[in-house]
Amino acid sequence: MPGPVQSIERAAAILRLLAQGSGRLGLTEIANSLGLARGTAHGILRTLQLVGFVEQDEATGKYQLGAALLHLGTSYLDVNELRSRAINWADALAARSGEAVRIGTHLQGKVLVVHHVFRPDDSLQTLDVGMLMPMHATAIGKVLLAYDANAAAALHDASHDASQDGELEQFTRRTVRTHREMSRMLATVREHGWASDVDEAGMGEAGVAAPIRGYGGLVVGAMGISGATERICDSGGRPRPDLVGYVRDAARAVSRDLGASRW
Amino acid sequence: MPGPVQSIERAAAILRLLAQGSGRLGLTEIANSLGLARGTAHGILRTLQLVGFVEQDEATGKYQLGAALLHLGTSYLDVNELRSRAINWADALAARSGEAVRIGTHLQGKVLVVHHVFRPDDSLQTLDVGMLMPMHATAIGKVLLAYDANAAAALHDASHDASQDGELEQFTRRTVRTHREMSRMLATVREHGWASDVDEAGMGEAGVAAPIRGYGGLVVGAMGISGATERICDSGGRPRPDLVGYVRDAARAVSRDLGASRW
Repeated sequence: MPGPVQSIERAAAILRLLAQGSGRLGLTEIANSLGLARGTAHGILRTLQLVGFVEQDEATGKYQLGAALLHLGTSYLDVNELRSRAINWADALAARSGEAVRIGTHLQGKVLVVHHVFRPDDSLQTLDVGMLMPMHATAIGKVLLAYDANAAAALHDASHDASQDGELEQFTRRTVRTHREMSRMLATVREHGWASDVDEAGMGEAGVAAPIRGYGGLVVGAMGISGATERICDSGGRPRPDLVGYVRDAARAVSRDLGASRW
Repeated sequence: MPGPVQSIERAAAILRLLAQGSGRLGLTEIANSLGLARGTAHGILRTLQLVGFVEQDEATGKYQLGAALLHLGTSYLDVNELRSRAINWADALAARSGEAVRIGTHLQGKVLVVHHVFRPDDSLQTLDVGMLMPMHATAIGKVLLAYDANAAAALHDASHDASQDGELEQFTRRTVRTHREMSRMLATVREHGWASDVDEAGMGEAGVAAPIRGYGGLVVGAMGISGATERICDSGGRPRPDLVGYVRDAARAVSRDLGASRW
């Protein structure tokens, strides 16, 4: 079994770096960030430019992501079975609940949004497909953490890497703070079979999500609604049982379409 | 100056291959398509899997594009200056013309759609961002061919590669067929400063587009409207002058925002 190809790993690291922050970096910044010699970084960047994955600004000489990546990203969506099987169910869930629907999968310690149906009203909304959401503060992320061992391990590594001494990023005063609190929360998610977030990702915002299982019962993603806390929750501050039912029904329907046996 | 890094070029070729056709390929198909030894292809695929650019289906063993590409593609849009400068002008153009608006840039002999505003009515429309359109049959593509030497060269190579003896792909009986016809057409585009397609990409569909110029006057993209031929064209079958004016005004406004001097 051959080892990973170092130059491809380095090329991927450069692309990830360019996807962060301002999105425009000079050769020296890139080489320093990744601990590469300038000549090595330059060779990789020129090749990435040749294949359209990176573009260089003529005026500043800075590098940014290239157009070919947009087409590859869209092509990923075209063959994504989770998304194609879920589209009709997601539309139905949005219509039934009156709220925005998102489908997410795990990517590098975050939730990657692979499908987004707008809340069925005329308000201005922005498409979140391709965006990353925090795992520990969103219902979809909690479902992935509860059922996907890779997702849990990636979050653990990420929060330790950030030298936050294992503390999780705080979005509001109600965001879960420690890994101990999170373990208790995830046990509850597994017990109930669904997750919620109430004022944890942002004050006044709440969500409910349930797992999507593929062949063999493996959790391949999560599907959820989100909206204003006063609409999602009852007067006791808990998610409305009818909405929880709609979300679970929709996620089960997608799972059956993906070949999961009833559970 | 170091040469391109071969393993990165091969990795990019594998990703492009997976973005075509069904989107799911086995190791042998990939190795054969690219003329690589199986062991070489396997090493590259394992590395691409490790960085999230490729996923392997557990049941069939086939490879497909991975989730990390979706996030990189979205990140490309976030830093794309052409798109960010153009968003407001594109909205205004859709409102003024009553038609769908697209902004495109050249990618590997095709038009890559980087922004798409739906026609302002309640009809069901599909977001085309990230899609590729043919260059010789669309107004946006003709503008890119007329002003971007790389785009013209890429189309020339592509149509010869396809061993079509230089003939261009036909979508309707009105699609331009030969490179000679196309040269005449592009001379007209340069003379007028805008392009149109009438029943060339599909019967009953028409479009009008104008160049977007960046710093130094370089054409960096094109912006256009498209819709039903009977709405876009007058009774003589030519694009309505008022619509042509709206498109040219909008493209000029974006160009000024991008730093092009008035021309």
